[in-house]
Amino acid sequence: MKAKEIDHICIAVKDLASARKIYEDTFGLELALEYIAEQEKIKVARYYLGTVALELMESTTPDGDVARFIEKKGEGVFLISYRVDDVAAGLDELKQKGARLIDEKPRRLMGNRYAFIMPPADTCGVLTEIIDGEFDPDK
Amino acid sequence: MKAKEIDHICIAVKDLASARKIYEDTFGLELALEYIAEQEKIKVARYYLGTVALELMESTTPDGDVARFIEKKGEGVFLISYRVDDVAAGLDELKQKGARLIDEKPRRLMGNRYAFIMPPADTCGVLTEIIDGEFDPDK
Repeated sequence: MKAKEIDHICIAVKDLASARKIYEDTFGLELALEYIAEQEKIKVARYYLGTVALELMESTTPDGDVARFIEKKGEGVFLISYRVDDVAAGLDELKQKGARLIDEKPRRLMGNRYAFIMPPADTCGVLTEIIDGEFDPDK
Repeated sequence: MKAKEIDHICIAVKDLASARKIYEDTFGLELALEYIAEQEKIKVARYYLGTVALELMESTTPDGDVARFIEKKGEGVFLISYRVDDVAAGLDELKQKGARLIDEKPRRLMGNRYAFIMPPADTCGVLTEIIDGEFDPDK
């Protein structure tokens, strides 16, 4: 498996409105879209910087993964997602290599297939995702 | 000021050799170069994914910024660096906006000018850098 590009980076934030203000006013980022991912329990502001998406994420519940991350480590980078050719094939390869997987099969959201491939301890503290497909908020 | 692209992302790691093994063996990343930045007290492995550089950083001293980050938060994403047109002009603009700056003037390293522009508390927990110039390890 080859991570070809960084697809997106997620920053866990306490308050999406304040975080948006910082990133839009200070860094001049233009909002691409805001969305809620029910399954992941997050409210997200998405921006594009070249080919990479930057997402600010606020948990929609106190027991969500993003809320727990902030409780443990404070606000910060929650996840890096790497674009690969085929998420399912990537998972098979990782399984053969003995990697610990969070997802055995790809999840699907907005035109993408993706999987959380191993606990942060195995990837130097970074929750890591592999992804394929084309992001489409209407799907 | 406009952050146009993500220039690089840095992951603070305890042991560069183990981290390299994970990222090279698991994600198929090809090492671009390994270098030591004396001023920053870090040993770095640099990779390219498309236009974005991913750097794994190990502190060369127990009192370095990377060591202190790991002590406080564990391994994880230490820094995001955004490419801007002009770091010096960016710093002036941020100063006018009342942003708290770590660097009043750009630092220089390997053909780049860069500056740490505010403490993590102002950028949702992420140490943030702005950068211009062309990275050249021979400079």
